[in-house]
Amino acid sequence: MINYESFLSVSGTRMQQSPIRQMGTVAAQNPDIISFAPGYPAPEAFAWDDYREIATSLLTGRQGGVLQYGPTRGHKPLLEYLVSLVGARGIRTSTDDIIVTTGSQQGLDVIARLLLDPGDVALVELPSYAGAITAFRNVRADLVGVRQDRAGVDLDHLDSLTDRLAREGRRPKFLYVVPNFQNPTGQLMSLARRAALLEWAERRDMLLVEDDPYGALYFEGAATPAETRPIKADDANGRVLYLSSFSKTLAPAFRVAWVVAPPALASRIETAKQALDLCTGSFDQHMVYEACRRGVLDRHVPVLRAHYQHKCGVMERALRDRLQGQAHWMPPRGGFFLWVELPEHIDAGRMLERCLRRGVIYVAGRAFFVDGSGAHTVRLAFSAASADRIVEGINRMGEAFSEESAQPQAPVAVHQE
Amino acid sequence: MINYESFLSVSGTRMQQSPIRQMGTVAAQNPDIISFAPGYPAPEAFAWDDYREIATSLLTGRQGGVLQYGPTRGHKPLLEYLVSLVGARGIRTSTDDIIVTTGSQQGLDVIARLLLDPGDVALVELPSYAGAITAFRNVRADLVGVRQDRAGVDLDHLDSLTDRLAREGRRPKFLYVVPNFQNPTGQLMSLARRAALLEWAERRDMLLVEDDPYGALYFEGAATPAETRPIKADDANGRVLYLSSFSKTLAPAFRVAWVVAPPALASRIETAKQALDLCTGSFDQHMVYEACRRGVLDRHVPVLRAHYQHKCGVMERALRDRLQGQAHWMPPRGGFFLWVELPEHIDAGRMLERCLRRGVIYVAGRAFFVDGSGAHTVRLAFSAASADRIVEGINRMGEAFSEESAQPQAPVAVHQE
Repeated sequence: MINYESFLSVSGTRMQQSPIRQMGTVAAQNPDIISFAPGYPAPEAFAWDDYREIATSLLTGRQGGVLQYGPTRGHKPLLEYLVSLVGARGIRTSTDDIIVTTGSQQGLDVIARLLLDPGDVALVELPSYAGAITAFRNVRADLVGVRQDRAGVDLDHLDSLTDRLAREGRRPKFLYVVPNFQNPTGQLMSLARRAALLEWAERRDMLLVEDDPYGALYFEGAATPAETRPIKADDANGRVLYLSSFSKTLAPAFRVAWVVAPPALASRIETAKQALDLCTGSFDQHMVYEACRRGVLDRHVPVLRAHYQHKCGVMERALRDRLQGQAHWMPPRGGFFLWVELPEHIDAGRMLERCLRRGVIYVAGRAFFVDGSGAHTVRLAFSAASADRIVEGINRMGEAFSEESAQPQAPVAVHQE
Repeated sequence: MINYESFLSVSGTRMQQSPIRQMGTVAAQNPDIISFAPGYPAPEAFAWDDYREIATSLLTGRQGGVLQYGPTRGHKPLLEYLVSLVGARGIRTSTDDIIVTTGSQQGLDVIARLLLDPGDVALVELPSYAGAITAFRNVRADLVGVRQDRAGVDLDHLDSLTDRLAREGRRPKFLYVVPNFQNPTGQLMSLARRAALLEWAERRDMLLVEDDPYGALYFEGAATPAETRPIKADDANGRVLYLSSFSKTLAPAFRVAWVVAPPALASRIETAKQALDLCTGSFDQHMVYEACRRGVLDRHVPVLRAHYQHKCGVMERALRDRLQGQAHWMPPRGGFFLWVELPEHIDAGRMLERCLRRGVIYVAGRAFFVDGSGAHTVRLAFSAASADRIVEGINRMGEAFSEESAQPQAPVAVHQE
């Protein structure tokens, strides 16, 4: 028998399954399960007919580049379109600063590899996106969590952490944030907090990694485009690496996302990406570019805003009906996620097993906390399920909650820094 | 001014541009240049009409999975098809052993990260595929080159290297090989050598990483399918990680490739891939699966064999006309590449500058040698250019060669282990 363990790298031995992807597999294997787990966009909202037209014309055109390897940077017309797309978000940039990535997950991975050595510190929000946590952990970085309040990152905590790390002789390389409708909390960071973070980065000589997949999906009447202004828009000195994606607005299948970075880093990201996958799929990039050029994206995004706002409302009403006074949540103002805090004695991981038996799943919140806390929290994605199934799913969750609440509870250890 | 260097990881500071990708960029920016540089498939040979039909039916069907995130392992029907596809190559396996990757480059990257720590040794052929070299170098592995003769890896050299490393207390994790129509030499490793490598891996407790993008593209009359039998086909004990791809047979734009690995490693590759890009593009995987299911691949591959054999013949004849007796090459028996050895005093990098001025490019061979040798070698891809342009390109190369030969030569250092 071969001892494969002896062949693994240190990172190789430590890599952990993504709890989101695991739940995605559970859902895929059993279509009867109502899934609030992965943040999947609604398949009924994809622009099927537009993509069919685009694919037909691309494949009739027989322009070699459509099916060939492409430049590592990305399809040139798409890069040029992205300059104007992020320009509308307030970011002044050029194609020198942009790299197309194979989903934002690749952007996170390449940033991790470019910036983090084993033992380096990266700061992340408490809670933060699990896919970023995994990407940073895979290069064996030490992740330190920063508290959030209702306006976003707690600046006092951030400063005291930075001081403490400095006393220990350690300088974090960056703070990773998701200011717009955060994954997992759905929270919108205030503009004042965004400005304060940029000031902190300047004062402390840090970088910010700003992840913005959901910014375009604000809910009318609940948030304004001005409130989603990226930190990168005010980044005069090149402190911010900005990531965004077409996965939540066009379709995740295309795996087309992008990074805007200071030019000195952008060229290194390009070099690093050469060894990751040579280039992002050319056919996908042509599909996405044509969807942008033909106005599909612009026509589609307002439809998606209404679509997700409606589903969010359905989920909130169902939650109020079933869990009012027992669980707490902030009404989302955009994005895909509703973040629920159960009573502290309820373990969301244990409750998930009951939910699974009743045919509903979510992601237990602990996966998003790098400090081991959050055992009583739950991330619910309202994006993918139909309205009927959202109501049915929350009903089932309510039953599981009642059952779990009635159980004699083992004391749950609460970890706080 | 921000000192970005101070934020980089050690790997980040060391990452190097791919010479192949660089040449690809040169070619893309100037369509008049005749490129023998990147190993691009012939765009005129893509199955455009079949893909148009497939895309139309996929996007009419509106089955959500076509545009959604998919399982990290890969699209289930595609995985099942791959079991039969590699089965036809003699590899007995199951879907538990297969992972779809975003091009084979991702397969190489994920294997590097899973198996190699900084300072670990990986063995590669002299010369070897530059994209693999970069992937292994990016995790800061030490690469040690093994000589080849006309039958493949030199087993005596391999054994003496392994002994020397053992005396130094270092065990290589694996040997990376491209037995079928190797990139860059085009060489076909003999079946005896393949068996000997497997025996070596068993005896020394090593793994083999076998990369096989070109195996299906043997030339009729020059090589038989039996001669392309993968080492993996005889791997009874799980010593071999096998990579293959649709990039050279269907289209590179889809970025669909796969790894067959022992199950203990396959599950770890899956976990690692979660953090790289979540999943390979679903639309692409559906396109590729349908092209397989509908027989496009099976109908197309024999056409490609004839297509590339013809182009290879054109290039060889042009070379004979221009460089007979001055340069040496082995007639390729399949694949995309013709490997040329110039007289030892000619520096192929310097000659490339002359070629560039004349509007023809190739990859200077030194990029493929981890020991710094190979300055007088040239990799020519005959796959992408039309027959006319191949002749014209070789003529221009011949002129550059004559010019370079007429120059007084600075002595060129030859590095050998």
